Amino acid sequence: MMTHISPAGSMDLLSQLEVKRLKKEATSDLYQLYRNCTLAVLNSGSHTDNSQELLDKHKTFDVDVVSRERGIKLELTDPPKDAFVDGTIITGIQEHLFSVLRDIVYVNMHVSRIHRENQDDPEHITNLVFAILRNAGALHPGLEPNLVVCWGGHSIKPNEYQYTREVGHELGLRNLNICTGCGPGAMEGPMKGAAIGHAKQRNDEPRYIGLTEPSIIAAEPPNPIVNELIIMPDIEKRLEAFVRMGHGIVIFPGGPGTAEELLYILGIMMHPDNAAQPIPIVLTGPKESEAYFRSIDEFVADTLGKQAQKHYQIVVDDPEKAARIIKEGIPNVREHRKETEDAYSYNWSLTVSPEFQKPFNPTHENMANLDLHMDQPTELLASNLRKAFSGIVAGNVKAEGIKEIEEHGPFIINGDSALMEKMDKLLNDFVSQQRMKLPGSEYVPCYKIASD
Amino acid sequence: MMTHISPAGSMDLLSQLEVKRLKKEATSDLYQLYRNCTLAVLNSGSHTDNSQELLDKHKTFDVDVVSRERGIKLELTDPPKDAFVDGTIITGIQEHLFSVLRDIVYVNMHVSRIHRENQDDPEHITNLVFAILRNAGALHPGLEPNLVVCWGGHSIKPNEYQYTREVGHELGLRNLNICTGCGPGAMEGPMKGAAIGHAKQRNDEPRYIGLTEPSIIAAEPPNPIVNELIIMPDIEKRLEAFVRMGHGIVIFPGGPGTAEELLYILGIMMHPDNAAQPIPIVLTGPKESEAYFRSIDEFVADTLGKQAQKHYQIVVDDPEKAARIIKEGIPNVREHRKETEDAYSYNWSLTVSPEFQKPFNPTHENMANLDLHMDQPTELLASNLRKAFSGIVAGNVKAEGIKEIEEHGPFIINGDSALMEKMDKLLNDFVSQQRMKLPGSEYVPCYKIASD
Amino acid sequence: MMTHISPAGSMDLLSQLEVKRLKKEATSDLYQLYRNCTLAVLNSGSHTDNSQELLDKHKTFDVDVVSRERGIKLELTDPPKDAFVDGTIITGIQEHLFSVLRDIVYVNMHVSRIHRENQDDPEHITNLVFAILRNAGALHPGLEPNLVVCWGGHSIKPNEYQYTREVGHELGLRNLNICTGCGPGAMEGPMKGAAIGHAKQRNDEPRYIGLTEPSIIAAEPPNPIVNELIIMPDIEKRLEAFVRMGHGIVIFPGGPGTAEELLYILGIMMHPDNAAQPIPIVLTGPKESEAYFRSIDEFVADTLGKQAQKHYQIVVDDPEKAARIIKEGIPNVREHRKETEDAYSYNWSLTVSPEFQKPFNPTHENMANLDLHMDQPTELLASNLRKAFSGIVAGNVKAEGIKEIEEHGPFIINGDSALMEKMDKLLNDFVSQQRMKLPGSEYVPCYKIASD
Amino acid sequence: MMTHISPAGSMDLLSQLEVKRLKKEATSDLYQLYRNCTLAVLNSGSHTDNSQELLDKHKTFDVDVVSRERGIKLELTDPPKDAFVDGTIITGIQEHLFSVLRDIVYVNMHVSRIHRENQDDPEHITNLVFAILRNAGALHPGLEPNLVVCWGGHSIKPNEYQYTREVGHELGLRNLNICTGCGPGAMEGPMKGAAIGHAKQRNDEPRYIGLTEPSIIAAEPPNPIVNELIIMPDIEKRLEAFVRMGHGIVIFPGGPGTAEELLYILGIMMHPDNAAQPIPIVLTGPKESEAYFRSIDEFVADTLGKQAQKHYQIVVDDPEKAARIIKEGIPNVREHRKETEDAYSYNWSLTVSPEFQKPFNPTHENMANLDLHMDQPTELLASNLRKAFSGIVAGNVKAEGIKEIEEHGPFIINGDSALMEKMDKLLNDFVSQQRMKLPGSEYVPCYKIASD
Repeated sequence: MMTHISPAGSMDLLSQLEVKRLKKEATSDLYQLYRNCTLAVLNSGSHTDNSQELLDKHKTFDVDVVSRERGIKLELTDPPKDAFVDGTIITGIQEHLFSVLRDIVYVNMHVSRIHRENQDDPEHITNLVFAILRNAGALHPGLEPNLVVCWGGHSIKPNEYQYTREVGHELGLRNLNICTGCGPGAMEGPMKGAAIGHAKQRNDEPRYIGLTEPSIIAAEPPNPIVNELIIMPDIEKRLEAFVRMGHGIVIFPGGPGTAEELLYILGIMMHPDNAAQPIPIVLTGPKESEAYFRSIDEFVADTLGKQAQKHYQIVVDDPEKAARIIKEGIPNVREHRKETEDAYSYNWSLTVSPEFQKPFNPTHENMANLDLHMDQPTELLASNLRKAFSGIVAGNVKAEGIKEIEEHGPFIINGDSALMEKMDKLLNDFVSQQRMKLPGSEYVPCYKIASD
Repeated sequence: MMTHISPAGSMDLLSQLEVKRLKKEATSDLYQLYRNCTLAVLNSGSHTDNSQELLDKHKTFDVDVVSRERGIKLELTDPPKDAFVDGTIITGIQEHLFSVLRDIVYVNMHVSRIHRENQDDPEHITNLVFAILRNAGALHPGLEPNLVVCWGGHSIKPNEYQYTREVGHELGLRNLNICTGCGPGAMEGPMKGAAIGHAKQRNDEPRYIGLTEPSIIAAEPPNPIVNELIIMPDIEKRLEAFVRMGHGIVIFPGGPGTAEELLYILGIMMHPDNAAQPIPIVLTGPKESEAYFRSIDEFVADTLGKQAQKHYQIVVDDPEKAARIIKEGIPNVREHRKETEDAYSYNWSLTVSPEFQKPFNPTHENMANLDLHMDQPTELLASNLRKAFSGIVAGNVKAEGIKEIEEHGPFIINGDSALMEKMDKLLNDFVSQQRMKLPGSEYVPCYKIASD
Repeated sequence: MMTHISPAGSMDLLSQLEVKRLKKEATSDLYQLYRNCTLAVLNSGSHTDNSQELLDKHKTFDVDVVSRERGIKLELTDPPKDAFVDGTIITGIQEHLFSVLRDIVYVNMHVSRIHRENQDDPEHITNLVFAILRNAGALHPGLEPNLVVCWGGHSIKPNEYQYTREVGHELGLRNLNICTGCGPGAMEGPMKGAAIGHAKQRNDEPRYIGLTEPSIIAAEPPNPIVNELIIMPDIEKRLEAFVRMGHGIVIFPGGPGTAEELLYILGIMMHPDNAAQPIPIVLTGPKESEAYFRSIDEFVADTLGKQAQKHYQIVVDDPEKAARIIKEGIPNVREHRKETEDAYSYNWSLTVSPEFQKPFNPTHENMANLDLHMDQPTELLASNLRKAFSGIVAGNVKAEGIKEIEEHGPFIINGDSALMEKMDKLLNDFVSQQRMKLPGSEYVPCYKIASD
Repeated sequence: MMTHISPAGSMDLLSQLEVKRLKKEATSDLYQLYRNCTLAVLNSGSHTDNSQELLDKHKTFDVDVVSRERGIKLELTDPPKDAFVDGTIITGIQEHLFSVLRDIVYVNMHVSRIHRENQDDPEHITNLVFAILRNAGALHPGLEPNLVVCWGGHSIKPNEYQYTREVGHELGLRNLNICTGCGPGAMEGPMKGAAIGHAKQRNDEPRYIGLTEPSIIAAEPPNPIVNELIIMPDIEKRLEAFVRMGHGIVIFPGGPGTAEELLYILGIMMHPDNAAQPIPIVLTGPKESEAYFRSIDEFVADTLGKQAQKHYQIVVDDPEKAARIIKEGIPNVREHRKETEDAYSYNWSLTVSPEFQKPFNPTHENMANLDLHMDQPTELLASNLRKAFSGIVAGNVKAEGIKEIEEHGPFIINGDSALMEKMDKLLNDFVSQQRMKLPGSEYVPCYKIASD
């Protein structure tokens, strides 16, 4: 089956050179990357978090960018059926197709060279993240601070999912916008809830921002409510985008990805340069998830210390309170930006250390070499722990990570025994609570904890 | 507590004379009517369906229309707290306040006299319903036919409510708009579902129309998602508005109000003049509600005959199919309007007989005098049955009806025994399924079935 | 030739009853009134100010309102060709057609009866003017005061016309909106100039309001730049609309119509109740028109006294200054409305005496009976002089007035000799300056000055 | 005096790196370029066409880009007063300031390197012109073909100016958009006329596109009606932008710049690859300009031959006809684009030979070396003549050219005597008709015609 899709949303004009370079026949790998991301967004709503499974299932899928009198069109061969209602593509997914195109073209054609030459320069990286977001139309200088980053697992329980909707509803009633990793679970619930809250408030320009990356988009395809989809090049730039765009952070229950996110933001907030940064951070879930938060909180206390705990509040079973803490914290963010002449739309003044910026490639070797010992500066420890969890996410759901594990067996995570014990406990909790992968299959760990 | 509310939505300009006539000090009953409707919309989301209870609970509530340099403002004294989030009124409710004002002013100041003089003229009534809808900005000649009227109970089970959301979602995905009686239950679920479907389709002008009437608005306060609220003068004009505006009808499980609506539309569709009218009608609910629909269907067959059954389809547990039947039926509506040069936005060519237009006042006497015998034209029988159920709705939830019952005991419903048996069975089903009133209290029937 | 015109702008929905009453076959005179106004707006840009000429020229012209699936359409038979560009009607004129329809329907169907019964009640008249403007969508409570009424002749010299454009340009650069009587000359120039000024300021919601009346619309057809056309029932309500809507007044050179307007506003401003009203009024024209203003100014001084002169400033040959006086005067208007809780969009608190409200019918008898003597209160004198000039306008360009003159010869204007001498001089100036009628024909006076 | 200007229009977000590179302190010449273009747009409406004069007059002028919480602001020191009305900058000029910023940043920071490396590759140049226009938001794939390029002199007579307005009015009535070189005279008149035509047609998204270049913007500052200002890097890319964006071309009377434009388009249209290109081209002016067009027409016939004359029509004194020819020619353009799958918004399929793309630097040497002989392919001759006129424009009004002439005396234009005679005659006509420079000073030719 072949379908032609007209542009919707942002990207409707390509130069002849750009079109040429996206063709299947072009020599680079770009086509493959582009095709796979396209397939992923078409797969919205599917119930798998295994990237490889998706790719295998749609081998005949093809996408071709063609020029027409009104700009470009996409020619899709054998697209997944669920992207269509009565034969017509869902508009939200249609927009996502062109968001993919926009970001693939920009990152790989317009800024790739300058980036290659400056990839170790922190100032450059921060400017690059800005440039990608600006090109995506995601930075609106006229807007008041109102963007709430919601983190949490893709695999959560029904009552937790319902809870994320309720928090979203309360955020929406307060006219706050939502930014998530844009997959299912805790990345979807807050948007659905906020959509109802926004409807009640007649908010006619609500923002449901989804930040993803090529290596995870297939495992966590964006839900169609996302009305601003941005594909960042890798997890480090995606995390930097989250924290520079957001004005408050809500963390719901989740697995290793959520742990990675928490460690990332704590590592940053603990940097002395960021002492004055007033970002409100709330960890919240339903009554039944209280134990989960206690164990996370304990893990933070045991590893990063009491100082780290000061940066967040835990709210149990009170969606309104969670939303109110964020709402009441945002005026401080606003004030701080004004005083420092920093942009509402992008937190330039936040310091993100190079160890949080530099892409971590979770090979077996890199995983084994992680410095996981308690006797190092907490900020560095946070960074290393972040990498460990990042590797586990890759081994669980990213295509390359899964392949790596299939070929070489589980990652070995190695460190001093006190720390390893704590990690082991936390990871076991994730496994037993089915937070590693979507339920339905036995979870085979992609890691092994060793200790010195 | 006193709050000032600025206009939102449609009504922001009143003449000095109009303001004067709305004042508490004005001699007419208008203020009381206006105040009570205002109180009702502020009470959105409350969990009671007893109008009197609401009024009793907010005795100190007051509303005053005041003139200001930017038009008018409402001065509210002691408004219900749930209409506010962190001290600010929910915009949806704010709009409803001005919809109430708009319709009260129009119906009682602009068309009351011409109406008084022509109330027995069917052509006039149809033009009046049109005029009220037009004044409310509810008729958009530019729009394609896409309005789905959803009927169903305010008191339904959680799985039924969830089902109405799913049907709403499928309707929304098909870019259909929703019109309901605007209370809770089956009047709210389809709108919430459609809001998500519309968001996925980037439908930025979705319509969630709520048609209500002064005597029921307090028992079934509009939910804030309703973005076009219209207060029709009475149930008969409200029903006429439904069928002239809608392009398809979905009927969910419900109680006597839903039965009234079904009998109304069947009575009309069976009129010989309407033989060519192609309105798609679907009765639908989850698996567990199948029995309910079977008994309704049987009641229709037994009373109005097989002819009546041809006008609707029953769809069990298949939200997508229910939505698709409507979607696929609408092009016929479109075609028919085009051929007859009738407006998409208002079905002028539908014949509504005078017995369906004339307000039925459910006094004990009128209820007792209803002609409920099988040996009459089915259309007339439909009309009389409609009135019987209308009376029961009044006795259950309308302030005046409740007062009537308190003073004089239950209505006596009288007719030939065959018919009475069937009614008794249906009503008993409603009682046992808790469809008469919101659960939480023992239901005391407001009627007694007698028979000749 | 027959053309169908779709609705544009405000009026697109009529009830069946309304359509019926507009038909040619309907018994009332309404069709004729409606047809003639329709013909007038189609004649936009024609170079005649003789209503009768226009009507005679298009005897086969016909308009029929027909119902269609998307509301109504107009079926035009033999419309004037200049309303079309390459066969398509100019959108501005298309909108005017539906403005005519809207106001004819409203005034003659919706408020005619209440008006008939209350036509001597000043409060009612002021509310009626409000109601017509509101129904036309011309009152925007959200707007800051920014509406400048521009008065002046339809027959002015090229340099005067150019000057009105320049003043318009300066008003437009200051984001002020324009309201005129909507014919050619000084009613068109300021709008054209403002359009350029607004374009430079990217003002994307500029208002070019034209207030006209059925008896003059044919002689002074609205220019298509007018984007809000309103047909008031008569000159008195039109004048009241001007002064209650406007926040400042600019008076350009003109003939008897302009004199009427000046006397009207002076009569009102001199009313003791209006002492605090801060409306800025500027009389302005190019260098060459200085003498004209001096003679008007003298006439005012001689008849109404020095008090009257205080209400306006004369600005010669300085468009920027004229605009600046208005711009700088408006904040006082704003302040005054705020303090008195009066609406920005409609000056309720301005007192307009009954003698300025009551329609003056310029028959020979009424003209002859005007009390034109110096020994009366100035406000009354202003009112009587206003009527005298009003009659001359009618005799010059209004169809009925022209007919009257043709049948009975010139009006006799009679008064004490001192006053008559001044009037005679002023009128002679108008004649010699070709301000009575468009140039091109010999002007035959429609009046004769007599004196006691 | 120092003023802060907030963003309007397109450019409101700069990265920290971009801001840094625009600072006065930055080492590159970029600041000077940026400052001068900024000064030029602030000088809109000034009556000089001498770039150097402008720069000399505002030596203390300074611009600084500063970061703020809502993005960037411009800090202006001693800006020209005429850009402000009552102390507030005219919005149109405010937008132009940010258009300058946008294009300076894009051309000099984002594409300068790739351009340097590919400047001899025709495909690259065409893609670059596209990229600059796309970045400026000037390409709208959804729009139907409707863009009329208007060329003509900045120094024209009042009746010619009035005529350009009338043609603009007729184009505007036909809902055509206007693109010019954006200075005064024939670059301004059509826009003003179209603004009135568009207002009559209620065209609420009219486009008045101004294409300029850094070296001429000071001599021909954009008028504030221009609502899309684009600064192309040089005259060759500017000309390419004109012909790839436009769907029809109107040429008014003008001097050497207009001759350059005519030769450019004729050279292109005569290329065999462009034989099927259906662009309508009209040369038009008032009655009094007929002789002018005859002499241009003769020059074309004498130099490029009868073939060249077929590409345009001459219309004398008939604005409506001129507009109609364009309007009626555009459907062919539309059809041709559709058939060739070429974009409506950018004519990719038009062949522009390298000799028309390569920047011509009018030094004395390059001017003297121009190959101006009749015995060469007409397309080449057109290109060389184009360069000769381009050099004269530079010598007349561009800062660098003027300096060149001041230092080294007039350019020597050398060629075979037959051709030189014709050129001499044409140039003498331009001089005697005051088309070389704005009237008011004696014109001293910047060239000397020699011949072999």
